[in-house]
Amino acid sequence: MGKQAKTAIEPTREENYPEWYQEVIKASDMAEISPVRGCMVIKPWGYALWENISRVLDDMFKATGVKNAYFPLFIPINFLEKEAEHVEGFAKECAVVTHHKLEQDESGRLVPAGKLTEPLIVRPTSETIIGDSFSKWINSYRDLPVLINQWANVVRWEMRTRIFLRTSEFLWQEGHTVHATKEEAEERTQMMLDVYKKMAEEYLAIPVITGEKSESEKFPGAETTTCIEAMMQDRKALQAGTSHFLGQNFAKASDIKFQSDKEIEEYGWTTSWGVSTRLIGGLIMTHGDDNGVILPPRVASSHVVLIPIIRKDKDKQMVMDYTNELAARLRNTAYYGYPIRVEIDDRDIGGAKNWEWIKKGSPLRVEIGPKDIASDSVFVGRRDKEPRDKSAINKDTFVDEVGNMLDEIQNTLFQKALAYREKHTRNIDDKNEFDAFFTPENKERPKIHGGFAVSHWCGDAACEKQIKERLNVTVRCIPYDQENEDGECIECGKASKKRVIFAKAY
Amino acid sequence: MGKQAKTAIEPTREENYPEWYQEVIKASDMAEISPVRGCMVIKPWGYALWENISRVLDDMFKATGVKNAYFPLFIPINFLEKEAEHVEGFAKECAVVTHHKLEQDESGRLVPAGKLTEPLIVRPTSETIIGDSFSKWINSYRDLPVLINQWANVVRWEMRTRIFLRTSEFLWQEGHTVHATKEEAEERTQMMLDVYKKMAEEYLAIPVITGEKSESEKFPGAETTTCIEAMMQDRKALQAGTSHFLGQNFAKASDIKFQSDKEIEEYGWTTSWGVSTRLIGGLIMTHGDDNGVILPPRVASSHVVLIPIIRKDKDKQMVMDYTNELAARLRNTAYYGYPIRVEIDDRDIGGAKNWEWIKKGSPLRVEIGPKDIASDSVFVGRRDKEPRDKSAINKDTFVDEVGNMLDEIQNTLFQKALAYREKHTRNIDDKNEFDAFFTPENKERPKIHGGFAVSHWCGDAACEKQIKERLNVTVRCIPYDQENEDGECIECGKASKKRVIFAKAY
Repeated sequence: MGKQAKTAIEPTREENYPEWYQEVIKASDMAEISPVRGCMVIKPWGYALWENISRVLDDMFKATGVKNAYFPLFIPINFLEKEAEHVEGFAKECAVVTHHKLEQDESGRLVPAGKLTEPLIVRPTSETIIGDSFSKWINSYRDLPVLINQWANVVRWEMRTRIFLRTSEFLWQEGHTVHATKEEAEERTQMMLDVYKKMAEEYLAIPVITGEKSESEKFPGAETTTCIEAMMQDRKALQAGTSHFLGQNFAKASDIKFQSDKEIEEYGWTTSWGVSTRLIGGLIMTHGDDNGVILPPRVASSHVVLIPIIRKDKDKQMVMDYTNELAARLRNTAYYGYPIRVEIDDRDIGGAKNWEWIKKGSPLRVEIGPKDIASDSVFVGRRDKEPRDKSAINKDTFVDEVGNMLDEIQNTLFQKALAYREKHTRNIDDKNEFDAFFTPENKERPKIHGGFAVSHWCGDAACEKQIKERLNVTVRCIPYDQENEDGECIECGKASKKRVIFAKAY
Repeated sequence: MGKQAKTAIEPTREENYPEWYQEVIKASDMAEISPVRGCMVIKPWGYALWENISRVLDDMFKATGVKNAYFPLFIPINFLEKEAEHVEGFAKECAVVTHHKLEQDESGRLVPAGKLTEPLIVRPTSETIIGDSFSKWINSYRDLPVLINQWANVVRWEMRTRIFLRTSEFLWQEGHTVHATKEEAEERTQMMLDVYKKMAEEYLAIPVITGEKSESEKFPGAETTTCIEAMMQDRKALQAGTSHFLGQNFAKASDIKFQSDKEIEEYGWTTSWGVSTRLIGGLIMTHGDDNGVILPPRVASSHVVLIPIIRKDKDKQMVMDYTNELAARLRNTAYYGYPIRVEIDDRDIGGAKNWEWIKKGSPLRVEIGPKDIASDSVFVGRRDKEPRDKSAINKDTFVDEVGNMLDEIQNTLFQKALAYREKHTRNIDDKNEFDAFFTPENKERPKIHGGFAVSHWCGDAACEKQIKERLNVTVRCIPYDQENEDGECIECGKASKKRVIFAKAY
């Protein structure tokens, strides 16, 4: 094989991972860049993925008592200013609305007019505007907890953008809760982190490490930021979701107070938590191969694509009838709580169809031609196997087995991603080894380095900063699954109580 | 009764309809005004209604082959300028983003910084930005039709705002399609209007008239705007949804071209169609009474509220067990394709609970106390009946009958609204009668006038304008259900071929 091996995506992951990422998205038809700087267009194949992710998350949120609501897109500047760290964190990258109409100037060009007395910013996150509502909704301990989620678009004016991973506008959900006690708010922070872990591992087939962010990587204004971190196939870390314990910081900023059961006025304890369309980028980078995207079945835009093979006009009616009947049967079959999602590709474009669906990552491809029909069978390709590895299966058997096949693909993807992460995760206690781990092995592949280093850190921000400056490596999280143990900081050699995850990151 | 009759909402509809509307929303806890000028906060009870409406519509769209996608929030000014009528229509009321960060000035105040070379507007509607994508997606007749929908927020800087009816930011869906022929685009325009009519009548229980807008009321840039128009209880019209046939106007503006099957390059034919959170306002104004909102069961935020009545501590466990078991059984019962939505109100606030749920418009209220349990029955109140008209029903019977009861309420609401509209719709052929019809009968109720006048109009915009200036009455639509007949224009007396709907409008 070697160099001769043909792949559908060029360059391959090995050759140039960042370019592979752009190409694989183009080939999958999931999204495209827009003429508006830093914004993306999410095309139907990509948006369906987001719909499925949203639906699953929404059900999980509601099962914990959360209700959805909707708050304004615009935030007055003075709201943002109420929390000092928060404004510091977001002022540098927010879209500002200053006018409310357009008028023609002397030359006939349309220019902003109707200047606002107070400019508004387009929400980068909604703690402050939602906090204002909460301060009105809450009077007594009887009003607590307040458990709210919002599905929305947000804007952070990013200078360097990449589709799904970092765009000026993105879609997300942001949960915001208020509790009577610190303990209850901390418990909610963990509960939502667990929801995110479940979503990532059981639905997206992305193994994640849970833990806490260091001071320097925290959400601006949070007491504690917890996160799920995943390893991509270039061995970089992706922060895939965060759940913040906000203490009383935002309650004080927004004046969220309640009368306790002892009739004492107290500030509420708040949390916030969010995941975004970034998850789609994570999914692509975790599972994609050199032939394109691979969609995990439980959230896939479509589970099965049916490809009628019609070479002679006289066969057309029969093949399409057989295809439509199979589609109807599949759609009446449930997989993981939802009807099987079926696409029928009856375009008259010949053999290119099969490769298109490989690039799009459809978990199952089913070819249906006159010969298959004659033996009442279908010709099935699985996206977790080689493109040419296809087999004839009796039609009824296929309908009976489709759920199991999808689950096999789901599990294969997860196990493969887990094995990859474990292969590229190493406990490192020697500084030279640490530095070598993060130095590209091959100058022709400058983006590929070691992976996750599990190393001791004294907790000092100065050590973190030095490592970042030297290697562009940061503390991704202080993981919950590491036991306390005595060790020496990988940077300064001072005493350390725990290993943390160091990595390069998106 | 008379003056002594107590109602939960003050003022009543008769006393002051606009104020009743504000009060009824406040009492229902569906939404509130926000500190951001013209924007609203949609609270959980209101948002759940929007979720249910969205889900039903989304299913109906998808059944016609439409797929969802997402396009940027921001639109470059030069995109808007591509269609002359379009920019004329929207330039007067759009939020303009001119900067991409905030910085402190000398006095320490945060001010806009990082001026954009080209300002962006926040989408008021997306024909132009979506058209840009379509121009790239479409090359050949084989790529057509393109059938896309977007669920999104949009901003139109309204000077006079009213919750749900007219807000600067609102939520909506906007469908955008491209077709190879005029006929197919016109057919799609009608198909989506039919979807909206079905949604309004079968789900929201709002009878609507379908028809076309006059030239002066058309969407800016459309060839034809079709609409569904409803009558509110102040006899004013509400435009509840529109479906536009855009001809080739936007295709030419955005350069949406395709190679036909005869290998000729042609412009596509486009449509767009949308409904918004305004539907919630329409629902409130159609069904609400002087005790609050009444939610039509098929989209109600909750179908049934269970209210445990616990007067003694010793009863608590038993009553709650009984309530929870009933909730579980109801949730396992389907109504109109979805599980029955159940709220349990176990707050310790006594008899006020019942009235709260009346004001919120829950279709069914079920009180459960120790006496009811002893006879294995529940005490049921229907929102379409008098508040005190409640009756004991055997629990099993209730579970069996809940779907029928909800359907009875649904039908009652529709029939009542239809009867109201018919009562206040009149064929008028005399100008004096026409003017009197639109003159308030009672100076103390300046908002209540006749209703819908079905009168002849010659089609001349000058007549339309005169009527608007004199009476603040406009042509709401040229209805499809009116046969052609010879008549005389109600304003100028010239020959007219058809009656149209004249009304005051939101």
